[in-house]
Amino acid sequence: MTKTIIILGTIVHCVQQNTIEIIENGFLLVSGNKIDALGDQTTYAELKKSNQSIDDDAEKIILKKNQILIPGLIDTHIHAPQYPNCGLGYDRPLLEWLDTYTYKLEKKYRDQDFSKKVFEAVVRKTLDHGTTTACYFASLFKNSSLILAEAAIKYGQRALVGKINMTTFAPPDYVETPADSIADTRKFIEDVKSMKNNLVQPIITPRFALSVDMDLMRKLAEIAKNYDVHIQTHISENVDELKLIQEKYGIPYAEVYDQANLLTPKTVLAHGIYLTGEEISLLAKRETSIAHCPDSNTCLKSGLYVAGGPSPSIVNAMKAALDTSVHISFTQENYIPLTYIDAFYLATLGGAQALALDHVVGNLTAGKDFDALIVDMDVVNSSVDCLMEYTPAELLQKFVYHGDDRNIINVFVGGKRVK
Amino acid sequence: MTKTIIILGTIVHCVQQNTIEIIENGFLLVSGNKIDALGDQTTYAELKKSNQSIDDDAEKIILKKNQILIPGLIDTHIHAPQYPNCGLGYDRPLLEWLDTYTYKLEKKYRDQDFSKKVFEAVVRKTLDHGTTTACYFASLFKNSSLILAEAAIKYGQRALVGKINMTTFAPPDYVETPADSIADTRKFIEDVKSMKNNLVQPIITPRFALSVDMDLMRKLAEIAKNYDVHIQTHISENVDELKLIQEKYGIPYAEVYDQANLLTPKTVLAHGIYLTGEEISLLAKRETSIAHCPDSNTCLKSGLYVAGGPSPSIVNAMKAALDTSVHISFTQENYIPLTYIDAFYLATLGGAQALALDHVVGNLTAGKDFDALIVDMDVVNSSVDCLMEYTPAELLQKFVYHGDDRNIINVFVGGKRVK
Ligand SMILES: [Zn+2]
Ligand SMILES: [Zn+2]
Repeated sequence: MTKTIIILGTIVHCVQQNTIEIIENGFLLVSGNKIDALGDQTTYAELKKSNQSIDDDAEKIILKKNQILIPGLIDTHIHAPQYPNCGLGYDRPLLEWLDTYTYKLEKKYRDQDFSKKVFEAVVRKTLDHGTTTACYFASLFKNSSLILAEAAIKYGQRALVGKINMTTFAPPDYVETPADSIADTRKFIEDVKSMKNNLVQPIITPRFALSVDMDLMRKLAEIAKNYDVHIQTHISENVDELKLIQEKYGIPYAEVYDQANLLTPKTVLAHGIYLTGEEISLLAKRETSIAHCPDSNTCLKSGLYVAGGPSPSIVNAMKAALDTSVHISFTQENYIPLTYIDAFYLATLGGAQALALDHVVGNLTAGKDFDALIVDMDVVNSSVDCLMEYTPAELLQKFVYHGDDRNIINVFVGGKRVK
Repeated sequence: MTKTIIILGTIVHCVQQNTIEIIENGFLLVSGNKIDALGDQTTYAELKKSNQSIDDDAEKIILKKNQILIPGLIDTHIHAPQYPNCGLGYDRPLLEWLDTYTYKLEKKYRDQDFSKKVFEAVVRKTLDHGTTTACYFASLFKNSSLILAEAAIKYGQRALVGKINMTTFAPPDYVETPADSIADTRKFIEDVKSMKNNLVQPIITPRFALSVDMDLMRKLAEIAKNYDVHIQTHISENVDELKLIQEKYGIPYAEVYDQANLLTPKTVLAHGIYLTGEEISLLAKRETSIAHCPDSNTCLKSGLYVAGGPSPSIVNAMKAALDTSVHISFTQENYIPLTYIDAFYLATLGGAQALALDHVVGNLTAGKDFDALIVDMDVVNSSVDCLMEYTPAELLQKFVYHGDDRNIINVFVGGKRVK
């Protein structure tokens, strides 16, 4: 028999853009890995009438006061190898930071023991912080990238894992040949697929248009098409980068990727700060998404935009998106800053849509996989005290502005409790 | 005999503006409440030669790898009664937020049990987050404000505690008469002084120039002078407020306080976002300081400036100051954003200078009171993993960008361990 879970209590999620649905005295039924029913006490009563043994068969979780059930958080862009550098070197501009911190560290992932140590820590830490789905930039090295996929499987995180493609624009001892890039990417995809875990999938990951050429990008697009996998890369993060793209390709940044056939509905582009209206229209036409990286952009001083940065936490990213947005509003008239609801949407349903995974995750509607968090705003020794009565919306506000991993007491991915 | 503590390990502090001193293999000697000596192993060896029993008499703390000793953090502006509202209502502009959230909550502090519950939580929480000195806006109510002073004494926090003065520009059931305002302020000062605790002092606290009039402000300035106590208030937080100040007084904001004799070397003004060059010169001439509230200004959408906000943590305030500063740099040419060193300075020595307490606290030089934190960046179940070797400067960066209260394993105030 399939394992069932019944959750009773306050449920908060987004059913559409920038609005939240709050179900007080809510009811949610999980069968196996999927949400079977969502509703209120009436739904529950009806279900009990039609299935009298439902209570006996299920594990029952009754949420306490100050607890809410919310969808799992979705990180649309995270560089797993950079985790040991979290918080370091933000006094340097992007290209200098890459040399001093990023590449120096990334070369270490030739070492498989080091890879395992870091990647298990990243998966464990992000799960503890509520990231049920992560879209990872893994390593240049195939074997190291496979170790990240194994770590996600080990701890039960939903993940898109990309072996990075990079043949140039990096130190000479930290690039691959185009032939190796193609061969290793194919092998990586085959190897991840052979793990036969439906939570973890490979994603095609050219670092950015300066680290590869048009020919390699077209071949990678072909591979993505043949295997029907996702694609991710960076776009338009920084003014110096834009100049170099113009020199190398002579066309706008988005068009470079379009000519390479990399813009698909399953493509997610990180940053995109300096995109023109025409480029944004092109991306929209191709149904390609942008991953917003507020904290990373601030720390690396690239520009303002509305999840990356010094923290492995999407909770922090929500707060950062809100702050950044308010700062934009100070200098741009008629710009309406994001609210906590917008930030919550971006971290859940919006993230699922960006990764073209909203048919599977992103909210708690029946039929989707059960990826969810039990948030408790009244945890002893957390950063928050509950000294008054709070509404569910206020509990969510406190979580977004002020909560951390201590307030996430349980994490479920695909119906399985992983924290 | 006076109790002595010897600390051996890496010591990081600011001896002047915007620079850090890092003492690897450092040595610090505490006698009673004061720092008796600071130096390296040579200092320690010399001291042992001249005082052979020093090791036997002292409690010895040997810092581990990934631990650093830093000065206690200083919060120059915190509204203790608003703690239960942390993170709430930031979707509303300032004046609406005051009505909906602030005043409604603040009225509850007529209730002494509620006051005790909240204020003990605030002191406990801020100490746990490393705030060794807090400059508090307490309550309109004298008795409630005394409860905050008692809470600071109970848990051992250094604090300036201000009973708020407010006779107008608030709901009619939440103001005091000018006569009561004066009488209660005098009584409050006397009562705090009679507690005879050298860590906790009263501070004159008119809420802001709209909530009091010139006559009351002048009388408060007279009281401050007679008792030789600190003064705090708000200035120039918001554009709507500026218009009302102009209507009420017809002179620039800083001049209002100057005519009231409130601008002294022991005065700290919160916010100060829209001050003109002339106003800033006036404050400089009076040696009056500005408390920077990056997170609060962002959340309340008042303007950009470089500690208040949704968190009781100065660690978060450091991060917020850095982010805000980078955002300013995107729109203002020739503006050089703050570094982690600047943020650390502002949270320690800079905060002490703003409160005119830098002769007592702010860094770890000999002769000052021992207010300090042991920071450990390798705490199990914290938000941070130490997966590589880090320099002391990198440990500090990780703490500023990425640490939280879990990384603050010990807190000392006036030589006493309070966490
Ligand atoms: Zn990136
Ligand atoms: Zn304030």
